[in-house]
Amino acid sequence: MIGAAEIDLAERLADAAGEIARKYFRQPIAVDTKPDRTPVTIADREAEAAMRTLIELRFPNDGILGEEHGTARGDAARVWVLDPIDGTRSFIAGIPLFGVLIALVENGAPVLGVIDQPISRERWLGVAGQKTLKNGAPVRTRACADLALATLYATSPDMFGADQPAFERLKGAVKATRFGADCYAYAQLAGGFIDLVVEADLKPYDYCALAPVIAGAGGAIADWQGKKLGLKSDGRIIAAGDPTLLPKARAVLIKA
Amino acid sequence: MIGAAEIDLAERLADAAGEIARKYFRQPIAVDTKPDRTPVTIADREAEAAMRTLIELRFPNDGILGEEHGTARGDAARVWVLDPIDGTRSFIAGIPLFGVLIALVENGAPVLGVIDQPISRERWLGVAGQKTLKNGAPVRTRACADLALATLYATSPDMFGADQPAFERLKGAVKATRFGADCYAYAQLAGGFIDLVVEADLKPYDYCALAPVIAGAGGAIADWQGKKLGLKSDGRIIAAGDPTLLPKARAVLIKA
Repeated sequence: MIGAAEIDLAERLADAAGEIARKYFRQPIAVDTKPDRTPVTIADREAEAAMRTLIELRFPNDGILGEEHGTARGDAARVWVLDPIDGTRSFIAGIPLFGVLIALVENGAPVLGVIDQPISRERWLGVAGQKTLKNGAPVRTRACADLALATLYATSPDMFGADQPAFERLKGAVKATRFGADCYAYAQLAGGFIDLVVEADLKPYDYCALAPVIAGAGGAIADWQGKKLGLKSDGRIIAAGDPTLLPKARAVLIKA
Repeated sequence: MIGAAEIDLAERLADAAGEIARKYFRQPIAVDTKPDRTPVTIADREAEAAMRTLIELRFPNDGILGEEHGTARGDAARVWVLDPIDGTRSFIAGIPLFGVLIALVENGAPVLGVIDQPISRERWLGVAGQKTLKNGAPVRTRACADLALATLYATSPDMFGADQPAFERLKGAVKATRFGADCYAYAQLAGGFIDLVVEADLKPYDYCALAPVIAGAGGAIADWQGKKLGLKSDGRIIAAGDPTLLPKARAVLIKA
């Protein structure tokens, strides 16, 4: 169960990671390349380390899965899933659309999610069964039942690999497609300004935090097969502000 | 000549447009589609109208070319070139990377440029022969003489039309390519966080303001033929933080 203690910790984690992100944003820091060819900086590493320390102190039996420092107690019933800076490429380009992503996954299902933008100091908090809050005030997705009227976002057209033709079909079916924005696009979908975000090649630390935020704002989020997201999802994600739009987007994506 | 009166007016224009943009940002406003199929809102129209009124009061003989309300005295020696909200698509998606763009063009050459982001309250001011200022403090581009180490931005992969293969060649030659960001990418290039911005299909109100900002920060900006930007440019733009990178990018773009 998610209680005040878990929410309080999630907020403290976001505070700690955000402070570190602000300290290094637009400062001359080295950018290293990881084995998966994605960039990483001292800001990513320090921010995740700070969050892990806080979790160990408060809930030492909980598991932790982080982008930069790996997995601890990964078979625990509760696992904190951390992306200290989702959108490191935006971070190093000086563009404040990156975010701190924090999820609590219980028996495989994300039950708490935080999307935090440390520069604009915007924070979205989603908890299973509760309304999603942005800086404490409820947010809601907007209605859009027609693909032809929908605005679609993805971080990059180059994230789809063999699914590129599927994404191109969807692009042809919607009103407008825009790129960039990382996790910030999901937050704007939760707020009712974007109708669809469709991405691929995401890892659990990229998508677990999104699920409670989107669901608690009245939207729907699933993998491309329509299944609920969990630690074992394949990283292909559809988020829809209007839940009736999700199967329509899926139908275009999976059309043979 | 650009004097204190012109700079003062440019700042007042940005203040006025920014106030209107803030008033409508993330509010439920109608989105109309213009004949060129781009979106427009009351925020674009009101912000440009406010700027035009201020110009008429202060310099009634100057020309005005605006995205939303057309051209007045377009053959004047001095023309103010206005984009009240560059990145209307970002604006209506709740993403604060849009900007107010203001240029003063003298005998065809941009001699003053403002890029203003009304939500983050960041303003870049470029004046011919002077150092570019961000919120009053000088900014500088970074050195990057090697295409293979460069970070490239463009607003969308879909803006290139028949030049798509040229852009794809450049993408293959740089270290990393990212999309989104509108005028904000040029501002980050001026600040030393991005190496190249290459775009196409831009109008004078999209690119005139960028030229003095980039040049005054130590960068270079030109069309794909390497020519300086003016009111008659064809809308294909290269901006390079390191001036030595510009001909290298051009060589890849124009290779047969």
